[in-house]
Amino acid sequence: MISKSDILEAHQLIKKYIHKTPVLTSSSINNIFDLELFFKCENLQKVGAFKIRGATNAVFSLSEEEIKSGVATHSSGNHAAALTLAAKWRNIPAEVVMPKTSPKVKVEAVRGYGANITFCEPTQEARESTMAKIVEATGAMFIHPYNNEKIITGQATAALELLQENSDLDYVIAPVGGGGLLSGTLLTCHYLFPNVKVIGAEPKGADDAYRSLQKNQIIPSINPKTIADGLLTSLGTLTFPIIKEFVDQIITVDEASIIKAMRMIWERMKIIIEPSSAVPLAVVIENHELFKDKKVGIILSGGNVDLGKLPFHLAN
Amino acid sequence: MISKSDILEAHQLIKKYIHKTPVLTSSSINNIFDLELFFKCENLQKVGAFKIRGATNAVFSLSEEEIKSGVATHSSGNHAAALTLAAKWRNIPAEVVMPKTSPKVKVEAVRGYGANITFCEPTQEARESTMAKIVEATGAMFIHPYNNEKIITGQATAALELLQENSDLDYVIAPVGGGGLLSGTLLTCHYLFPNVKVIGAEPKGADDAYRSLQKNQIIPSINPKTIADGLLTSLGTLTFPIIKEFVDQIITVDEASIIKAMRMIWERMKIIIEPSSAVPLAVVIENHELFKDKKVGIILSGGNVDLGKLPFHLAN
Repeated sequence: MISKSDILEAHQLIKKYIHKTPVLTSSSINNIFDLELFFKCENLQKVGAFKIRGATNAVFSLSEEEIKSGVATHSSGNHAAALTLAAKWRNIPAEVVMPKTSPKVKVEAVRGYGANITFCEPTQEARESTMAKIVEATGAMFIHPYNNEKIITGQATAALELLQENSDLDYVIAPVGGGGLLSGTLLTCHYLFPNVKVIGAEPKGADDAYRSLQKNQIIPSINPKTIADGLLTSLGTLTFPIIKEFVDQIITVDEASIIKAMRMIWERMKIIIEPSSAVPLAVVIENHELFKDKKVGIILSGGNVDLGKLPFHLAN
Repeated sequence: MISKSDILEAHQLIKKYIHKTPVLTSSSINNIFDLELFFKCENLQKVGAFKIRGATNAVFSLSEEEIKSGVATHSSGNHAAALTLAAKWRNIPAEVVMPKTSPKVKVEAVRGYGANITFCEPTQEARESTMAKIVEATGAMFIHPYNNEKIITGQATAALELLQENSDLDYVIAPVGGGGLLSGTLLTCHYLFPNVKVIGAEPKGADDAYRSLQKNQIIPSINPKTIADGLLTSLGTLTFPIIKEFVDQIITVDEASIIKAMRMIWERMKIIIEPSSAVPLAVVIENHELFKDKKVGIILSGGNVDLGKLPFHLAN
């Protein structure tokens, strides 16, 4: 079980590598909803996402012996870039398995950080079997994107920084995909800020966390469909129990609200967030009475979007 | 003539109303060009642009008698919004003349700040004659968007803040439209940071400042055409002499470089800038040998873009 001191030590370990991202506010958005929002800007983090926190903690927590053949993961997204950069900092190789259908921009980003990329068919089975072969051949240590205690502990430091700066929040809302960020956030609040209620924000089109809590067991997403491409994954065996024990509630939202929230942040705050980051504000949009007059922290999880494929023509 | 103390006093006067915007850096952009860039983020300023500096200085410099009937301007852009907000702070009305072809999003923004809007035909002549009628009828004080000493003095405070934080810059690059921002930047450097070279960045499609310097007289733009919609205006009788006396050089750039620079800032810095703000980085892109190993300040003038009409499909 991850402890309070694990989180505090992880923060000490990683903080010389990562940015202490700013917490921004917007009086115009506050005025719309009659509340106070505090946005923790992990879109401005290294590699453009909170994922560098967990990856750095995992890579630097491993012993010389464990990492002598490098690290490995399968991911089409931010975790692959983060793990590769953390590996570069520790001067070890990173092996990444990516579906051959991955967007070119993501492949280029991961390659740019220096990963050895192996392409596979775009199925979960192909990812895992290809990963197994790479690990077998190279001896690299596999680092799961969220179902890994060091990863969860690293992700917990985003909420730690947010609440160290703003300890009187009533709520923190974090998006939930595989649950690494949400479970880390929950542990930080449980140990250090027990008065803060934590809400998981999930697209209706990928609502496995909502359904898993209802059924009291992990119900994986089958063909999830949402613009929030960072939230397509399903809860893991480490993240589910933490979420089940500590979360206040999971709130699901429509696609239209996600696009509206994304546009609101782009237009009024002049910062770029990816769709997954907009899901917490979408929760506020759809449930503003719940948050009236409250102080609400929102973790903006990342800012990696393909500018050639923006969704703004979809709304209005 | 604007003096050093005018600039320092303007800063004292306006700083309780405006944001002290951050100066951001990007190691990835620095690595591309082998230099150090310092971005003064006026896109994160109130009303999303540096224009609030001049407008606030103008509105709060006027006497009770002068402003008793409010202020007025003709503008389809950021100056109208800025003047209206400054007028609201001083509790006086703002009259704005806008071409009836103005984008709805800009009309809504200006109306949202509380202006009385009068629409006119989209010609310079109609703007001026309509403005004259409004001033006649209301007694409001006309505040020109750039050909006004108080406006220029207010705009000078953006470079002041940038250089107070980073006094060892080799260059500052500011975009040039009517020349308010550039002439203010030049006066700040002339009086307070005389070792800093100041460059004006101008689109080739709206290169009246470049041509005016060559001919040693104001050559207005005829049908300028550029994506940098904040830079369509021509130099004024107050801004031209300041630019002529103090500028190091005006450098013009292609449209493709402006779009490339805009995309680079969006993708790598995760902040939203309008096309006009990208023109200084376009100067670096086209002339990187000139800036090699230098410390270069860039004023990001604003962040007001229509997200429904982004140019990224135009490049690549």
